[in-house]
Amino acid sequence: MTRIAVLPGEGIGPEIVAQARKVFEALRHFGFEAEWVEGAVGGMAYEMHGDPLPAATVALARGADAVLFGAVGDPRFDHLERALRPERAILGLRRALGLYAQLKHVCVPPTLASLSPLRDERIAGLDLLVVRELDGDVYTGQPRGRRAAPGGPFTGQREGFDTMRYAEGEVRRVARIAFEAARARRGSLASVDKANVLETSGLWRAVVSEMAADYPDVTLTHLYADNALMQLIAQPTRFDVIVTGNLFGDLLSDAASVLTGSIALSASALLGDGPRGMYEAGHGTALDIAGQDRANPIACVRAVALMLRHSLGRADLAVRVEDAVSAVLVGGLRTADMVQAPGTRCVGTEHMGNAIVAALHA
Amino acid sequence: MTRIAVLPGEGIGPEIVAQARKVFEALRHFGFEAEWVEGAVGGMAYEMHGDPLPAATVALARGADAVLFGAVGDPRFDHLERALRPERAILGLRRALGLYAQLKHVCVPPTLASLSPLRDERIAGLDLLVVRELDGDVYTGQPRGRRAAPGGPFTGQREGFDTMRYAEGEVRRVARIAFEAARARRGSLASVDKANVLETSGLWRAVVSEMAADYPDVTLTHLYADNALMQLIAQPTRFDVIVTGNLFGDLLSDAASVLTGSIALSASALLGDGPRGMYEAGHGTALDIAGQDRANPIACVRAVALMLRHSLGRADLAVRVEDAVSAVLVGGLRTADMVQAPGTRCVGTEHMGNAIVAALHA
Ligand SMILES: CC(C)[C@H](C(=O)O)[C@@H](O)C(=O)O
Ligand SMILES: CC(C)[C@H](C(=O)O)[C@@H](O)C(=O)O
Repeated sequence: MTRIAVLPGEGIGPEIVAQARKVFEALRHFGFEAEWVEGAVGGMAYEMHGDPLPAATVALARGADAVLFGAVGDPRFDHLERALRPERAILGLRRALGLYAQLKHVCVPPTLASLSPLRDERIAGLDLLVVRELDGDVYTGQPRGRRAAPGGPFTGQREGFDTMRYAEGEVRRVARIAFEAARARRGSLASVDKANVLETSGLWRAVVSEMAADYPDVTLTHLYADNALMQLIAQPTRFDVIVTGNLFGDLLSDAASVLTGSIALSASALLGDGPRGMYEAGHGTALDIAGQDRANPIACVRAVALMLRHSLGRADLAVRVEDAVSAVLVGGLRTADMVQAPGTRCVGTEHMGNAIVAALHA
Repeated sequence: MTRIAVLPGEGIGPEIVAQARKVFEALRHFGFEAEWVEGAVGGMAYEMHGDPLPAATVALARGADAVLFGAVGDPRFDHLERALRPERAILGLRRALGLYAQLKHVCVPPTLASLSPLRDERIAGLDLLVVRELDGDVYTGQPRGRRAAPGGPFTGQREGFDTMRYAEGEVRRVARIAFEAARARRGSLASVDKANVLETSGLWRAVVSEMAADYPDVTLTHLYADNALMQLIAQPTRFDVIVTGNLFGDLLSDAASVLTGSIALSASALLGDGPRGMYEAGHGTALDIAGQDRANPIACVRAVALMLRHSLGRADLAVRVEDAVSAVLVGGLRTADMVQAPGTRCVGTEHMGNAIVAALHA
């Protein structure tokens, strides 16, 4: 039987995951069954097991067909050495599962444009996929650390340093995902780098350019990251697919998601070779509202849809879940993080989850 | 006599600089006189002298009280090795003049909120200063280059790599500017990093935190770059002063400037120790509209105001120039890059420059 490893984490993680679970249960009605096995991760895992990513959790995730990730992070653990902090679990899981691409798909149908911080005419019709490299770049390059500055005017002072790097194969595997996605969508790919400054970007740009020959049906453009970000804010609908490295991707995918009106509206699929992926709402633990039935479960429910599509071969059910979410939003239900307006109604986490389930059956 | 080194560069650079010059000339009326000496920079300098930043230009800039920079960059030179490309002139000048802080001040008075891609209620009243470190970080860290990947699954493949780094003193000198600015403004400073991932950011955060003791009147917060960017888009008016490193600052300062409605509306001051600074519109060469009297000269004129304030000790005249620009905008004049609406009038570069000069005398 299909096996889902579920890592609720902390803060609002367990609450939003609980709504995703309701949706999962509701899918039985359509003949879909899966085993739901929960594991410990983040600060709560550190407290219970002395490790934000216990070996048992990694084994659980590795043995599953897909992983659903809630949220981790708590400033109570900021004093710990970096290896023990909750966020390490995120980076550790990506590595352990060989996930090297993050896909964030953001859509703003005209009926929901009013949610966006951007004016309706700038955002209506947005349908953008951000493909972020997730394993390399300055996130994992070696060497890195603290030392006495080895030279220059600040010699001997405390220095922090990291290595940014990409090898050809790392660029290729994520760019292939982006080219294929562009081919299946509107045929336009924007590759984002800082090739005017960075050697790493020079290699990135060269490899992506070489690959373009294999995709004559895809129009490839190269943008510097600062320019790409400005265009993303000023004219987001001009983009189809964006592909970029881990660090620029962290910023651009979050910027893209906030354009929809709340970061709690768009989910991410984290993929590697093969069908197993990790799916997440991608927002933080929001400790200030945890346990108050105020969190927005929509991104987490949409993560379920992505999982159905990318890991479980059930695109048909993914569409059902996505349609249910859209119906509830178009019907005017909102959580507290979203813009409230005449004709909308602010509801809690549970209520929103139940409404999505009801829409699934409608 | 006060001496201004002027580096028009290419594309729309010379056109916008010509309007700044008119404003300069008009200031004679208020008893201000300065010598205006032009130098070659960028692609045109490469074509004339084989070097995008000739030694004579560096000498000119070093000998001046302030530098006004137009724009450089032209894809015609993309095939050249990086050291000969026009953008090198930008990085080279920063180094040669010891400029380690870029100040970008973005303001959106309620009367001009309609220009922004954001909804009026999100942007009205924005008054934000982004202080970007400009000398260090992954822009200049060594080693950097191309090599065969030294290890891991991609051993032997082409690899591009750079070094991200900050030493304590580099963080201190730029953070001091930001703390002082916050003290003179609304007393709130947001320091932006990725301390959850990067060792460089860990050092950055530690040093900025230590300095907070010297500024008990400033409220310091630390934000991760992805979160800062989301807040900048969703609720920009919550910020007063932002301080960050070179790479995050490149993105955040451009994002901030696009929120005003056009990147051609906000100028930058590039500062080091001492009064000499470089001032720039900070946008690109816009080759597609160069020479057509369509470029927006406002950021370049505002750069003159910043120069008067930060390098020439004439804050009184800076206010006059800024007021003249605001008056023209509030009066409804627009260039083609800005939102057009009922009651506004689209004019060319020259017309806009002349209108600002007229407003100066009004
Ligand atoms: C928590 C952090 C390490 C992580 C990242 O930077 O990748 C987060 O921002 C994300 O995008 O999932
Ligand atoms: C042209 C480029 C090197 C430069 C930078 O990244 O610093 C530009 O984007 C800027 O911000 O002035």
